[in-house]
Amino acid sequence: MKTPVEGVDHIAIATPNLDESLAFWERALGIRCEHVEELPERGIKVAMLPVGGTRIELVAPLRADSEVSAFLDKRGGGIHHLALRVADVDAGTAELKAEGVRMAQDPAPGAHGCRVAFVHPKATGGVLLELSTPPVGRR
Amino acid sequence: MKTPVEGVDHIAIATPNLDESLAFWERALGIRCEHVEELPERGIKVAMLPVGGTRIELVAPLRADSEVSAFLDKRGGGIHHLALRVADVDAGTAELKAEGVRMAQDPAPGAHGCRVAFVHPKATGGVLLELSTPPVGRR
Repeated sequence: MKTPVEGVDHIAIATPNLDESLAFWERALGIRCEHVEELPERGIKVAMLPVGGTRIELVAPLRADSEVSAFLDKRGGGIHHLALRVADVDAGTAELKAEGVRMAQDPAPGAHGCRVAFVHPKATGGVLLELSTPPVGRR
Repeated sequence: MKTPVEGVDHIAIATPNLDESLAFWERALGIRCEHVEELPERGIKVAMLPVGGTRIELVAPLRADSEVSAFLDKRGGGIHHLALRVADVDAGTAELKAEGVRMAQDPAPGAHGCRVAFVHPKATGGVLLELSTPPVGRR
């Protein structure tokens, strides 16, 4: 992939209970939660905790068919995915596909105006990997 | 915990085969591997790939009782742990314990002269969390 990877955008941690998770990450560890957002179309509520040049995202379900529910049913919580910031997710995805890398989701609008794609865990050695490009004003 | 969390030190990804993993993270994604190190006392080989202000660490077993072997047997590869850089891991661990947080490993010498401790996944909601303090010269 010639499109440069610019950094780790976030590390997403799935939790069945956002308040319990915040009790650990925010109150015990002291990492301040900057923002909590509900994304009803994805069935989730996300707490964003910036740390260094990246952030931890705590993701809790709003309903039984949320995008983290299957993971929570199987694992009961833990690191759900890793997101890398790339300069151009559309170009990057095309390049990965040309190299034979299997995608789980083609580039599409994501949260906060980002465009996001997901590489299939079969291609990464078991990691659900998001590639994210922020909107022009936030690059 | 009053000891400040300064950033994400690394994201550790366990893999049964370092070359196959490097084929994806380095050659397909284009994140340059800076260094590969064998740590025979822990039974592992680690490839370090700096990205943004943090790094991805690919961890492969050197023997059947390595510190990632049980995880690999169960999951077949994936994100193994998250490591946060803290100003003082000894003080931070004492503070966490005073708050009733269960540790998996008390502070001890780790790789590269760091002192490291591990918070138990039961306390974090399923995440094996390393706290790491680099040696004085690298802070």
